[in-house]
Amino acid sequence: MLDVVTLGEAMLRLSAAPGESLEAAPALAVRAAGAEANVAVTLARLGFRTGWISRLPDDALGRRVAGEIRRHGVDVSAVVWAERGRTGLYFLERGVTPRGTAVHYDRAGSAFSEIDAEAIDWDYARAARWVHVTGITPALGPGCAAAAARLIREARASGGRVSFDVNYRHKLWSLEAARATLDPMLRELDLLVMTRDDAQALFGLEGPPAAQAETARARWRCGAVAVTAGTDGACLAAADGLAAVRAVPGVELDRIGRGDAFAAGLLWGALDGDLRAGLRYGAALAALCQTYEGDVAWVTRDDVLALLAGAASRTAR
Amino acid sequence: MLDVVTLGEAMLRLSAAPGESLEAAPALAVRAAGAEANVAVTLARLGFRTGWISRLPDDALGRRVAGEIRRHGVDVSAVVWAERGRTGLYFLERGVTPRGTAVHYDRAGSAFSEIDAEAIDWDYARAARWVHVTGITPALGPGCAAAAARLIREARASGGRVSFDVNYRHKLWSLEAARATLDPMLRELDLLVMTRDDAQALFGLEGPPAAQAETARARWRCGAVAVTAGTDGACLAAADGLAAVRAVPGVELDRIGRGDAFAAGLLWGALDGDLRAGLRYGAALAALCQTYEGDVAWVTRDDVLALLAGAASRTAR
Amino acid sequence: MLDVVTLGEAMLRLSAAPGESLEAAPALAVRAAGAEANVAVTLARLGFRTGWISRLPDDALGRRVAGEIRRHGVDVSAVVWAERGRTGLYFLERGVTPRGTAVHYDRAGSAFSEIDAEAIDWDYARAARWVHVTGITPALGPGCAAAAARLIREARASGGRVSFDVNYRHKLWSLEAARATLDPMLRELDLLVMTRDDAQALFGLEGPPAAQAETARARWRCGAVAVTAGTDGACLAAADGLAAVRAVPGVELDRIGRGDAFAAGLLWGALDGDLRAGLRYGAALAALCQTYEGDVAWVTRDDVLALLAGAASRTAR
Amino acid sequence: MLDVVTLGEAMLRLSAAPGESLEAAPALAVRAAGAEANVAVTLARLGFRTGWISRLPDDALGRRVAGEIRRHGVDVSAVVWAERGRTGLYFLERGVTPRGTAVHYDRAGSAFSEIDAEAIDWDYARAARWVHVTGITPALGPGCAAAAARLIREARASGGRVSFDVNYRHKLWSLEAARATLDPMLRELDLLVMTRDDAQALFGLEGPPAAQAETARARWRCGAVAVTAGTDGACLAAADGLAAVRAVPGVELDRIGRGDAFAAGLLWGALDGDLRAGLRYGAALAALCQTYEGDVAWVTRDDVLALLAGAASRTAR
Amino acid sequence: MLDVVTLGEAMLRLSAAPGESLEAAPALAVRAAGAEANVAVTLARLGFRTGWISRLPDDALGRRVAGEIRRHGVDVSAVVWAERGRTGLYFLERGVTPRGTAVHYDRAGSAFSEIDAEAIDWDYARAARWVHVTGITPALGPGCAAAAARLIREARASGGRVSFDVNYRHKLWSLEAARATLDPMLRELDLLVMTRDDAQALFGLEGPPAAQAETARARWRCGAVAVTAGTDGACLAAADGLAAVRAVPGVELDRIGRGDAFAAGLLWGALDGDLRAGLRYGAALAALCQTYEGDVAWVTRDDVLALLAGAASRTAR
Amino acid sequence: MLDVVTLGEAMLRLSAAPGESLEAAPALAVRAAGAEANVAVTLARLGFRTGWISRLPDDALGRRVAGEIRRHGVDVSAVVWAERGRTGLYFLERGVTPRGTAVHYDRAGSAFSEIDAEAIDWDYARAARWVHVTGITPALGPGCAAAAARLIREARASGGRVSFDVNYRHKLWSLEAARATLDPMLRELDLLVMTRDDAQALFGLEGPPAAQAETARARWRCGAVAVTAGTDGACLAAADGLAAVRAVPGVELDRIGRGDAFAAGLLWGALDGDLRAGLRYGAALAALCQTYEGDVAWVTRDDVLALLAGAASRTAR
Repeated sequence: MLDVVTLGEAMLRLSAAPGESLEAAPALAVRAAGAEANVAVTLARLGFRTGWISRLPDDALGRRVAGEIRRHGVDVSAVVWAERGRTGLYFLERGVTPRGTAVHYDRAGSAFSEIDAEAIDWDYARAARWVHVTGITPALGPGCAAAAARLIREARASGGRVSFDVNYRHKLWSLEAARATLDPMLRELDLLVMTRDDAQALFGLEGPPAAQAETARARWRCGAVAVTAGTDGACLAAADGLAAVRAVPGVELDRIGRGDAFAAGLLWGALDGDLRAGLRYGAALAALCQTYEGDVAWVTRDDVLALLAGAASRTAR
Repeated sequence: MLDVVTLGEAMLRLSAAPGESLEAAPALAVRAAGAEANVAVTLARLGFRTGWISRLPDDALGRRVAGEIRRHGVDVSAVVWAERGRTGLYFLERGVTPRGTAVHYDRAGSAFSEIDAEAIDWDYARAARWVHVTGITPALGPGCAAAAARLIREARASGGRVSFDVNYRHKLWSLEAARATLDPMLRELDLLVMTRDDAQALFGLEGPPAAQAETARARWRCGAVAVTAGTDGACLAAADGLAAVRAVPGVELDRIGRGDAFAAGLLWGALDGDLRAGLRYGAALAALCQTYEGDVAWVTRDDVLALLAGAASRTAR
Repeated sequence: MLDVVTLGEAMLRLSAAPGESLEAAPALAVRAAGAEANVAVTLARLGFRTGWISRLPDDALGRRVAGEIRRHGVDVSAVVWAERGRTGLYFLERGVTPRGTAVHYDRAGSAFSEIDAEAIDWDYARAARWVHVTGITPALGPGCAAAAARLIREARASGGRVSFDVNYRHKLWSLEAARATLDPMLRELDLLVMTRDDAQALFGLEGPPAAQAETARARWRCGAVAVTAGTDGACLAAADGLAAVRAVPGVELDRIGRGDAFAAGLLWGALDGDLRAGLRYGAALAALCQTYEGDVAWVTRDDVLALLAGAASRTAR
Repeated sequence: MLDVVTLGEAMLRLSAAPGESLEAAPALAVRAAGAEANVAVTLARLGFRTGWISRLPDDALGRRVAGEIRRHGVDVSAVVWAERGRTGLYFLERGVTPRGTAVHYDRAGSAFSEIDAEAIDWDYARAARWVHVTGITPALGPGCAAAAARLIREARASGGRVSFDVNYRHKLWSLEAARATLDPMLRELDLLVMTRDDAQALFGLEGPPAAQAETARARWRCGAVAVTAGTDGACLAAADGLAAVRAVPGVELDRIGRGDAFAAGLLWGALDGDLRAGLRYGAALAALCQTYEGDVAWVTRDDVLALLAGAASRTAR
Repeated sequence: MLDVVTLGEAMLRLSAAPGESLEAAPALAVRAAGAEANVAVTLARLGFRTGWISRLPDDALGRRVAGEIRRHGVDVSAVVWAERGRTGLYFLERGVTPRGTAVHYDRAGSAFSEIDAEAIDWDYARAARWVHVTGITPALGPGCAAAAARLIREARASGGRVSFDVNYRHKLWSLEAARATLDPMLRELDLLVMTRDDAQALFGLEGPPAAQAETARARWRCGAVAVTAGTDGACLAAADGLAAVRAVPGVELDRIGRGDAFAAGLLWGALDGDLRAGLRYGAALAALCQTYEGDVAWVTRDDVLALLAGAASRTAR
Repeated sequence: MLDVVTLGEAMLRLSAAPGESLEAAPALAVRAAGAEANVAVTLARLGFRTGWISRLPDDALGRRVAGEIRRHGVDVSAVVWAERGRTGLYFLERGVTPRGTAVHYDRAGSAFSEIDAEAIDWDYARAARWVHVTGITPALGPGCAAAAARLIREARASGGRVSFDVNYRHKLWSLEAARATLDPMLRELDLLVMTRDDAQALFGLEGPPAAQAETARARWRCGAVAVTAGTDGACLAAADGLAAVRAVPGVELDRIGRGDAFAAGLLWGALDGDLRAGLRYGAALAALCQTYEGDVAWVTRDDVLALLAGAASRTAR
């Protein structure tokens, strides 16, 4: 039995070195990445049993994506292998202030975007304690949206719990389309995560993050709602009231994946029955994640606990 | 006025180092490449005025493709810039005997595949002495096929000459589809180029390359037909009879682009009014091309002439 | 239930680029490798369920080794994690004729070398259809030798079959020590593999490989014995007589791991009940393996079958 | 007709990675760069038609320099190709506080340093709306100085406008020599650019940048004078009075080329008839330029306008 | 006659790029490094005649270590070459706040750890004006401790002076073991260096660095004691009273080796008879050292003096 | 006292990777190299005490050249450090058949080319058993020619022996100029080395290498003359008659430096009093040298002897 099952697309990330333009970089570093897979990877690294459902072409690039996720210990046995189709890509040009990070998606028509919910082994999902879904999946196509909705239904039907990270991507769909699709999905979640900006722009939630979280919790009757605010930290509204955490200060070497690391931290707490601890885990994981190239935080449970215990970021030797 | 105008797609080529699998390579080298652009590049390097018509997205990847082609001196002012659309890609895993070179196309839905002949500046094409087309373009979509056909018509109408390189790609279309589309395009060309294998498989031309070339010349009433046979060299059937050239022996460091280099050599001869010389230029350029990583032969006219003059491949110092 | 379980050490391989000396290389490529793990990886890539038993330090280097093996699908849940100890290493300087490949082991005192058979989950091993052992493991220390011997016993006791690859390493132990330890382990194996040179030097088996294989089969009463002879191919002596296979010609880009690829091919045949087919699979896998940097042949079952079916090593596009 | 023509040397820039010493770096990154070429490149990227006059050896290194500049769309048809001579070089060791950036010129005796004004196609220059010259060119040799002076005369004679960037380089000549040569060249320019430090050290202009700019404008009867002051921004004195711009804050990943980017921004404004806008463009381009490795700011007109419009430097996805 | 002789282990340093995990880095940069060798290298670069005594295996890795140290001008003729044994290693994962730098030692059982004082050419050491020892050497084994102690005795007996840098490494030994071994070695040194943290934790020296230095000087009757306090600078207690220096502010690109650079600066002053100048040299060298990848500060005497003279860290060109 | 002293220029070698054009390579590998320094390096690696006299600028590039030579153990204390001047460079594009290796010298005006014989410490040279000179040095300038001639005179006056490697470089001077300068230098050498081609083209020596060597020995009254003939091996004419050696077959990964390795092998024999052995050493070293990137053969005496003893170029493990 798995602790957490996620469903989503993972892409190949092709990134230029800092200071290099995509227009000129002689080589691009290749890594596998995707919001839901990132969460599964982080939780696997922390010691949880996780599985990732997706659809990939049965070729070298598809095998690469699955292999890079599996190396961390995520179970990929429920991936649907497609005879045809492409692997989604994203090209990344790293930001250097005042130049922003540029994410150039090239994922249209991917094997995942054509996933058919009927092809998924739902027994696999039903056996999980928890399922995690993000708002990216419904943006990728009707089959994807159906699969995400079905995953939530299956989990509920079998007594599993459900978390959802809104993750609005304006390059994938409009605010209107996202709102219409996502709003009904947010009802009665065990854990809902969104950014302050998404809360405001997508759902009209005003006020500081704490207020947004409380309003959201009431509106969708969720168990808990976390609203993240970047360097301003994050807030959590739950049955036992409000909690907040400051962002852990640090260098932003590569910000991609930070939100997924935060969500994984929250889930760690949730799985351990201590969401407030999860808020702290999330803040630590987000800060650690952005010190690594790539979406993955190459850390262990001990690394996170040591950071939270105040171990100075000194040279250990 | 330009000497040669070509029309076709150029892609980003993402290649793993020799000995690396696409499933594992930590980085991929990036270069721009495409059969027609390769011909334009080589001819520009040889001193001819060349132009390349294409369609690219107006983003960093599209600008990269155009910029890499322009650096050699090819005029790219007739490229159609698309607000939307993707840049075609191909992933390349280099062959090491007995493992073959693997070309993994990811070009479906590219900006070029949606080109509309009406958007092209046909005055530009009409002003060229010569136009060059390949059989890849018609495989990429109906708009592409229409543009290729129109380019040939426009050239003829304005007194330009026309060459065509068959370049069958089985990953793009079936033999049947290719035959149906390409056969009518081959009529009355000034110069037709094809491989021995394509001659046989696509058009049923039997016998040795010389016989294939003569049969093809008669069937389509072309000015000249060249049939290439890899390490067995190439044959040319023209009004003044048959000619043959041996392949120039050498190391096959990266075979992609070799055929385009050969075609460029033939065109050099054709533009100079000496197709038999072109056959020798083609053999030399093909051998030189495969000594470079990437599709481009980074040579000059002098390098080709020196090789043909028998200058030993010794260290010059 | 797993198809094949292996036990052995995997190291980090630190290799200089071709043409670089270990005395000067500015950087070393890092990969995980080890004879038994290589076999498990290849079989997993071919579609078999495989597991690898080992002992690794619970640190970044140890996790790396396990992760790189797991990415191919090998189950690593039976790895024993050590609180202390080092990860074995080997430094590799690639050979260029007439300079030989130099393997510089730095594996003394590794976590694996201190493995205790009592710490291993023998239920795990007993559940496998087949176990695979090599002569490297007994060379690494008394605990290693005990674990290898126990694995064979457990397999037999539970009805599993056993293969053994002699793999003599003169940098690890003397001929005398190896002979004394290995000779008794070779009795009544289902499949025994050794090189022509090891057959002669270690066990005094004279004559051509076919004769060596037959003599060995009789001496140790094995089900089948394969003797490999590099570019001269390999011979198999089994109940149904002798079989031979020629080496598949090709470029030796990186010879390390070739023997393990051959053994994996034999096991593929053995698991499918067709050892003679395994001989051909082994020859193909060995040739493919040496076209990749690193110990791993990044191929699929289809790649091997295509090579054996005579598909030319041409560019596929 | 070209919008802007520049004349100057471009070199190969051989740069060590950050943290690497030139005394030890195993490899050096290669790029083409030169102050005037940088301006032409940036303006071409912004959509202006620009041309660059220079002299390069007709060999691989010379072709490289021209090709890298041409890829951005700069016309290089007026480059004089020399049968003999070397390509100027500069070695770059990146600064890390408190260690300064070290530029190690190796440009003596370059093909450009031996340029003969008679060999230049002055019709080409006369056809431009604007010519741009820097104080580096006169430092490189008498022929260079003559060519720079002639370019200014030709532009004026044909109704073109003239800008001049002082760019004092103490490694090329003394303050005295620079002053004697440059002072007479600055008269009646349409646009003069210099740093606060050069204004003071070379020409004795005291006071804050605004005062320096006004004094300079009066002294040399220029249309407009811009004085740059690094992180303190820049001031412009023109017929309509004084204007100032703050530096756009950001990370200084590679400061080389920043001044050229600023000058290009000013010219953009000048060509559009709005020098005050040019001051803002310059500040934005300078900040963007130093976020890229190499002298070139790989940006588009839209990138600059977005930055000035206050678009947050956030991840776009 | 040499100015300074040191004795200690140098290792190969295998470092991942910033942002890369040791668990995933595809390649590791290789450099030679060791505290005492670093001091010898820096002093050689500054113009002093230095020698380094060590023990290395006579293989490619051992030769590499010696060669990299010799390239700076350090005499390595007194290195003891071992027929067997390994070269010590350390793996380095660079810190990015809040993630600390991780030094993963793999030096147990190195050739140096088995050094026998009898194998050392003590005449070589006796001929030096000054010997430098660190507290790392006694941690590496009894032979190492004996050799360090003997070096101090030999120097004293022949009129040489002695410096000692405490350099406690908690991954090598406990506080208790270090205290017991090091305390008696600190008596009557000419120069003792330690960090504020080591002073407190190892020897119970309380108070600010100045107080620690004075107490230490009295306790062990040393000529001079320097206590370093990272970004808080350093203090020196000597016969002529107390002196302090502020840390030179700068970017911490790679902190490893900074302490050794500081010690080398102090020794420079000591050799010139001006320890207070040495304090400033040390501060400058420490700041410069951490701007380079690797343990070595690739600077000259002029670079240090220019920094101290207030030369701005500007681009020099 | 040194065994061998050489005098010559060493340059920075900037080489593109195989398959890369100098016109496009994104980075160039940097190494120090020069014919005489290569000989000194190889002999030092073989255990001889060698010194190298040269002139280098006192900057990072000059220090780099000296440091890279010193790391092998060559004494560089007699290098003359120039306050001004440049380090000679050569750009290298690796040959791939039929494309030849291209050496692009950029050494005009180097610090070495302006060497003044008076600035050299001739006592240093006089103390050597043997001096080695090549025909490159006289080509670099009159001071260089004077220094080379003086070195020969000084050696003779002090009883040292002299070897000379003709090494004609057509990019440096004409056949006529070389002949006029070199012919008088060849008289009464202890060892003269030249290629078959130089023997014929420069000095009109006809016939096979053996005849060329005998004629040369008689003409210039040399102790011994070796004539090399690439893959045809080499011949030696000496007092005890003729000897010949076949080339050791192998892969030509990087041919630059092969001739210097051969000369070093001959000198090894000469220093040991066995020139015929030297012929074999030379053949082995030449073959080994071309298996390494760069001019240096990273081998030891044992490696050479093992190759000559017929040790198979197999993997050692």
